[in-house]
Amino acid sequence: MPDTAPYLLTPYLLTPGPLTTSATVKQAMLRDWGSRDGRFIALNAGIRDRLVRLAGGGGDSHVAVPVQGSGTFAVEAMIGTLVPRAGRLLVLVNGAYGTRMVRIAEVAGRSVTALVTAEDQPVSPAAVAGMLDADPAITHVAVVQCETTSGILNPIEAVAEVTRSRGRALLVDAMSAFGALPLDMAALGAVAVAASSNKCLEGVPGMGFVIARRDALEATKGNAHSLSLDLHDQWRGFEANAQWRFTPPTHVVAAFAQALDEHEAEGGVAGRGARYRGNAAILIDGMRALGFETLLPDHLQAPIIVTFRMPADPAFVFAGFYDRLRERGFVIYPGKLTVADSFRIGCIGRLGAAEMTAAIAAIRATLAEMGVASGAP
Amino acid sequence: MPDTAPYLLTPYLLTPGPLTTSATVKQAMLRDWGSRDGRFIALNAGIRDRLVRLAGGGGDSHVAVPVQGSGTFAVEAMIGTLVPRAGRLLVLVNGAYGTRMVRIAEVAGRSVTALVTAEDQPVSPAAVAGMLDADPAITHVAVVQCETTSGILNPIEAVAEVTRSRGRALLVDAMSAFGALPLDMAALGAVAVAASSNKCLEGVPGMGFVIARRDALEATKGNAHSLSLDLHDQWRGFEANAQWRFTPPTHVVAAFAQALDEHEAEGGVAGRGARYRGNAAILIDGMRALGFETLLPDHLQAPIIVTFRMPADPAFVFAGFYDRLRERGFVIYPGKLTVADSFRIGCIGRLGAAEMTAAIAAIRATLAEMGVASGAP
Repeated sequence: MPDTAPYLLTPYLLTPGPLTTSATVKQAMLRDWGSRDGRFIALNAGIRDRLVRLAGGGGDSHVAVPVQGSGTFAVEAMIGTLVPRAGRLLVLVNGAYGTRMVRIAEVAGRSVTALVTAEDQPVSPAAVAGMLDADPAITHVAVVQCETTSGILNPIEAVAEVTRSRGRALLVDAMSAFGALPLDMAALGAVAVAASSNKCLEGVPGMGFVIARRDALEATKGNAHSLSLDLHDQWRGFEANAQWRFTPPTHVVAAFAQALDEHEAEGGVAGRGARYRGNAAILIDGMRALGFETLLPDHLQAPIIVTFRMPADPAFVFAGFYDRLRERGFVIYPGKLTVADSFRIGCIGRLGAAEMTAAIAAIRATLAEMGVASGAP
Repeated sequence: MPDTAPYLLTPYLLTPGPLTTSATVKQAMLRDWGSRDGRFIALNAGIRDRLVRLAGGGGDSHVAVPVQGSGTFAVEAMIGTLVPRAGRLLVLVNGAYGTRMVRIAEVAGRSVTALVTAEDQPVSPAAVAGMLDADPAITHVAVVQCETTSGILNPIEAVAEVTRSRGRALLVDAMSAFGALPLDMAALGAVAVAASSNKCLEGVPGMGFVIARRDALEATKGNAHSLSLDLHDQWRGFEANAQWRFTPPTHVVAAFAQALDEHEAEGGVAGRGARYRGNAAILIDGMRALGFETLLPDHLQAPIIVTFRMPADPAFVFAGFYDRLRERGFVIYPGKLTVADSFRIGCIGRLGAAEMTAAIAAIRATLAEMGVASGAP
């Protein structure tokens, strides 16, 4: 991390996002942009092109459409625009983000059904096949690539295969993994993928985006339930004059352009993914050495966020653990999980081996301070 | 402008927003925040309290609800949540932002009607009264305080009076004037007011907000057409745990908190408004001295953005004028107006007499360079 100026980066955010960004990404926000000025327009065009390439969208077959707001706004724009009013959506649910897609569809007035799996189990392609065969009205299938509720990696390739072979359209919430785990839209045959600026691409929060097959998006005029979240209209706006329809978060966009430069400099998805896998290994090995157990077996664990079971030792009180760790400069995810008595620590963002090792040392010191028996907490 | 470091502030944005922000507002974005961490929660609580006070919401009667995205997202959240599905909305239209509210209501599936006035005329309270008397199904009236299409100030107090006296609810799009022109929700009896971070409050773009009467908002559960833009659900989220439901634009929020500090330090609405009136006077006087004519008479002109008629001199080509001015460090609004052959220059943002005087000098030099006859362009 040659660019770490400590005062700019601490506390380190070991969360599923917003996460720690580089000093240079933040410094890209130190100027103002006219949102309809030529220089800003060029910045946006570059971002859109790079996002399509990152998603494996070749040539002119796919388009990237940025959306103001959080990643959820992009997911809602994707569902509300791609699923026609007469469509029916099957959502694969094994955590909060799957549940949220069901809710998005319900509020938008779409017919929706869910295939629910336990939070510590991946979604089952065989069960998806069964649902699709049993319910011919289903037109679209939505799946979360990495469900940050538990940190589990879902088998989107196999889900894509059963979806495609049954003539249905696939929508992917790739939010928490896009840019760190491979995702090839052409190979998947996915219709659309939603993600955001502030996860593995290491921008700041304030915008999401959807990458969609051009032919699919072309057919969606009038589908959307919301003007602000009408992905077709937003796309037409970009195509017409290369501008956002409504005021873009200019500083966030500028930071995102810088973040994409840094992603490329790190070796793209392969380089970013390798660093995160290294981070996850340090975290998991270090926590296990301190006596913690992971919720998931290693083969289901994505290198994004890791869920640990709450120690049995009554000296371990989570709120105190969080606060003491915070004082040491590390912010972990403050929420607990429903599936098990557990808590989560993220390993994405502008963090490397040094920071993860320091985090483990801080956790060890915190446990000692709390009087939690080390080795068997 | 004691904080102007030229490299941070130029080019100056003479637009209706995003606009020029102070160096210190931008520098507030140089750190990362955990969106569910106590320090960020406290920052949000402070912003929400200050927004209520700025809108004249006394005691516990009003609440402020921030919304991710642009100001249009906040307006859509206001309309989609406050106007029930069985309601009917009358929108007063004398420019693009009124037209946009009609479109928002249509896409959200609300019954809507418009009272359309020419873009260089204020909306007519008497005509509103007539519409309300003739159409008892109308439940809500929406008006734009300052319509930046022309820069015109609409008579919201008189509109509020006829709306209130006929038992209808008033929604105000105060986007471009909030923080610079007085707006007293209690006196108006308005149900809700929408605005954004990046206009007269001089934050960066990426969030809007709605200030609503608590009793009105309490009655809106289940109204919204969109999960992301459900103002009731967003408000309940803030009330439950003081957090945003979905990832907030943390850096934008931090910049906004700093911007609100600077707004207060400048003397609040009175101080900010006085500076903008000074800016508008320098701009209008200077442009008139160069032979330009304003679209609006002075008594209809808000000190936000000014529309000038296009000079008759064929040497004046707008695109060239824009580009040359851009090279001199001033970005004006690039679009033309439909009501007349005209263009717009804004006078809000972190600009004072020195910058406005410099802008006039740059315009004078540009006209000379283009060979436009000065004094009668």
